[in-house]
Amino acid sequence: MLNYPNGHHAADPQTRKNSASRRGMELEKEINLTNEYYLQADQAVIYKKPTPITIVKVDYPARNKAKISEAYFKIPSTTDYNGIYRGKYIDFEAKECQSKTSFPIKSIHAHQIEHLERVVRHGAIAFVIVRFVLYDETYLVDALTMTDYIHTCGRSSIPYKWFQEHGTLIPYSYVKPVDYLQIVDRNYAKELAE
Amino acid sequence: MLNYPNGHHAADPQTRKNSASRRGMELEKEINLTNEYYLQADQAVIYKKPTPITIVKVDYPARNKAKISEAYFKIPSTTDYNGIYRGKYIDFEAKECQSKTSFPIKSIHAHQIEHLERVVRHGAIAFVIVRFVLYDETYLVDALTMTDYIHTCGRSSIPYKWFQEHGTLIPYSYVKPVDYLQIVDRNYAKELAE
Repeated sequence: MLNYPNGHHAADPQTRKNSASRRGMELEKEINLTNEYYLQADQAVIYKKPTPITIVKVDYPARNKAKISEAYFKIPSTTDYNGIYRGKYIDFEAKECQSKTSFPIKSIHAHQIEHLERVVRHGAIAFVIVRFVLYDETYLVDALTMTDYIHTCGRSSIPYKWFQEHGTLIPYSYVKPVDYLQIVDRNYAKELAE
Repeated sequence: MLNYPNGHHAADPQTRKNSASRRGMELEKEINLTNEYYLQADQAVIYKKPTPITIVKVDYPARNKAKISEAYFKIPSTTDYNGIYRGKYIDFEAKECQSKTSFPIKSIHAHQIEHLERVVRHGAIAFVIVRFVLYDETYLVDALTMTDYIHTCGRSSIPYKWFQEHGTLIPYSYVKPVDYLQIVDRNYAKELAE
């Protein structure tokens, strides 16, 4: 059995919902932990990209020590996560949603939608991971299924119900808090076999 | 014919070496321009990852305006560039070399070497782009060819001559200053056909 790199063992998956250890740990951190698990298990090589910033000023308070003293956040031109799994290029964006009823489309940048469509055209497996925080439910939705809906729905948000119908719930476990590759195996079996 | 996104036209490729317009433009910028060309031409989707930093302090000098006022550079755990080309995951690192005789191995981090070996194991096309600035020559070297040499050479640098023997010179053109995909097509024909 594989242990988490920190040496922790898997907790009982039954303790999933709202367990104390989980409180306050957001989607990004959980995906990073999951990716680290995949890396240690040599299952996949998938990383979050660093936050894009524009550096304006760098100070050198000591030799060999550079301190960035002025920088600004940039709008990302791509999604946050990419890498390789079973020989395939994987690309996805992850978003938390605080609403109980719908996911605001504006939380995904136009460039990110374009980027997802582009990588799919080039043969990627691409998707969006959306967590409805108040339900503690995390869905994987195929990128094109979601971008097609965005282009045609004429709405500013996607109903929660839509994710129940078109997404797949991602199971939680202590060692793999967002085990999305399990869903990828199932939902992209055809692409992975190519 | 495709134009560069800025509207510039291709210059005569003969004007390559030390042309005035090229002076002072470093490898990273040239690769970014090339990637942008590939993107506009819908040939490949390859990006440089943002520089990884640790953000310590963020100020809000105005509403909706976040200013990072303290941050530090982090050692990257992966290479700088990745993406998708002809359905394949592409991963590479790019380095300039100021020496005439050899490339210092320490300019590639140990994590980056591990990362390159890992992605190849998972089916990636991976390589290193090395520019010998004083010769104005840019080589593409297969990742494993280079990491195998690093592990076995017992030296702290790789001779320039080694790149001439084991690398492939990347041609320059105004619209595609570092047209590495041309070399990928040739050197990885087998992998691309899979």
